Amino acid sequence: MIKPKASVLKMSPYHPPIEGRAKYMRLDFNENLMGPTKKLENFKIDREFFSIYPEYGDFKKKLAIYYAQKEETLLPTNGADEGIKIVVDTYVDKGDEVILIEPTFPMFCVYAEIAGAKIKRVSYEKDFSFPIEKVLKLISKKTRLIVFANPNNPTGTLVEKRDVERILKQAKNTIVLVDEAYGKFSKQTCRDLIKTHDNLIVATSFSKVFGLAGLRLGVLFSQKKNIEYLSSVRSPYSVNSLAVKIGMIALDDPTYVDRYVQEVIQERKRLAEFFTRKKIYCHEGFANFILIKPDHSDKLYEFLKEKGILIRKVALKGYVRITIGRKDQMDTLIRCLEKFYE
Amino acid sequence: MIKPKASVLKMSPYHPPIEGRAKYMRLDFNENLMGPTKKLENFKIDREFFSIYPEYGDFKKKLAIYYAQKEETLLPTNGADEGIKIVVDTYVDKGDEVILIEPTFPMFCVYAEIAGAKIKRVSYEKDFSFPIEKVLKLISKKTRLIVFANPNNPTGTLVEKRDVERILKQAKNTIVLVDEAYGKFSKQTCRDLIKTHDNLIVATSFSKVFGLAGLRLGVLFSQKKNIEYLSSVRSPYSVNSLAVKIGMIALDDPTYVDRYVQEVIQERKRLAEFFTRKKIYCHEGFANFILIKPDHSDKLYEFLKEKGILIRKVALKGYVRITIGRKDQMDTLIRCLEKFYE
Repeated sequence: MIKPKASVLKMSPYHPPIEGRAKYMRLDFNENLMGPTKKLENFKIDREFFSIYPEYGDFKKKLAIYYAQKEETLLPTNGADEGIKIVVDTYVDKGDEVILIEPTFPMFCVYAEIAGAKIKRVSYEKDFSFPIEKVLKLISKKTRLIVFANPNNPTGTLVEKRDVERILKQAKNTIVLVDEAYGKFSKQTCRDLIKTHDNLIVATSFSKVFGLAGLRLGVLFSQKKNIEYLSSVRSPYSVNSLAVKIGMIALDDPTYVDRYVQEVIQERKRLAEFFTRKKIYCHEGFANFILIKPDHSDKLYEFLKEKGILIRKVALKGYVRITIGRKDQMDTLIRCLEKFYE
Repeated sequence: MIKPKASVLKMSPYHPPIEGRAKYMRLDFNENLMGPTKKLENFKIDREFFSIYPEYGDFKKKLAIYYAQKEETLLPTNGADEGIKIVVDTYVDKGDEVILIEPTFPMFCVYAEIAGAKIKRVSYEKDFSFPIEKVLKLISKKTRLIVFANPNNPTGTLVEKRDVERILKQAKNTIVLVDEAYGKFSKQTCRDLIKTHDNLIVATSFSKVFGLAGLRLGVLFSQKKNIEYLSSVRSPYSVNSLAVKIGMIALDDPTYVDRYVQEVIQERKRLAEFFTRKKIYCHEGFANFILIKPDHSDKLYEFLKEKGILIRKVALKGYVRITIGRKDQMDTLIRCLEKFYE
């Protein structure tokens, strides 16, 4: 048997995600529970379209308008995941130093490990605030990449823009990758800092606000020269043509997305208030989920699963993450929770 | 400006593929010109399906049956491209030796370069046969990966199975990746050698015979332990859910694929005979394209483009590659060629 390279051999074994989620109320993976734009009802497509290699020209034009960026400063990716991967592939050589702030989206670490990076870890504070001073102190000439999600998953933490700017200034020799998959829920973006900072790359995803998790669609934003390098390291066809077609229909209905974001924020507050009333520790955060620390997290998980509701046990012991859905779904959840706490 | 890592900096700049190909007769990228199974006519899908992260369980079961493999010996990938990439990511460390036989599919080289591999190149023979003795001689303890397409693109070369076995035996310390994207046209596969060779990985694609190039769907086959390593180095969601859904419909219609392959082989022979009659050098090969060396390749390219037909100028100077389409399309092509040679 031929062994993989050393950095891969050290990695934890792969655990496939659970199957058959469609029949549940899925509060476990921060999907959009309203579904994508209603313009996609009765979506039909000519079978011959499937045989043609994808083309991205029109999609890039639409993305440029939606995100108020120039076309040459953006790159569609196969989900934000591929975006993160190609940033690592482009900039991180074996032995290079990468700063991660944990707990966070596990793929940051997976991709850094594959590259054979030397990973420096900082923890979120106990109150889930961003350890800005520790991060600034850790940045050195050797740091090649800093990556964090903003807001972060699973903590919901938002790094304020002025702190992102402090990092960008301190990290002159370092690529700063800000994953804004949940950005729209926080009403903040760092995309506009790209113009003035050539070390910034922003990633976003169509999985959350646009409700297209199944299609694998993401975008990277950075200065033109960086986008050229990033483009050169991957297949020119990594994003599938149906995702592009459907993504364009989603971009045509921005008010739908805005209404969904409004409903999520409203329901997030309501759920946070519920837990506070119940005296259960709850961190509301700035994304489409909340983090709670119930007394009997395993029992709660099983109880809800039996009622047809999936929630997520996260890497933080005792904590569970709950995705915020539609008002009617949150009504159902609260009813079940009331029963559990009886 | 922060420079990418050294191996990426050396890479050639990225040239995006041409756009607006749908309006042409596309004989340039070896797509399936018959389209996928007719079972996909009037394909419709519920918009809420788009919001759910992909699941692969049922698809893997169907793949196992179609390819006569065990489920745990296969892995769906985002096109064969991602398959090749994760093989490199898993096994090739910086400075490791990779053998490429050229000219071939350019992504083999791109991915090896990103990994910082030391690339050893062998050329196909002048008559486009596989340089088996040279390859065997080049394999050493240092060789980490050998990769070739079988049949090869753009030469159409088929490496016979007994030669693949000679490589597998010689390359005890080496992963041998055989890309069978065009395998079905050659009526040969090395998938059955997996049982007896733990250093073999076979890749295939749904872009060619299944006519799903736009969807990005591929499969890797290897022994269970290798598949586990390969799974661990990438996003658990890299293949999109619509590709999976549509791929399953395609797998349900194997006779459609068989008929398409028959028509391609028949038309390939007819086109090869046409060029031979015209005294134009022509290499028929074993895939869904032929390679010709016309006297005025640039003029021919422009002439056909004006008639609405795209062909491909390949890396071999003076050669053009022509994808084999339906009988009626080949009739049109031959009529245009007759005019050109008048």
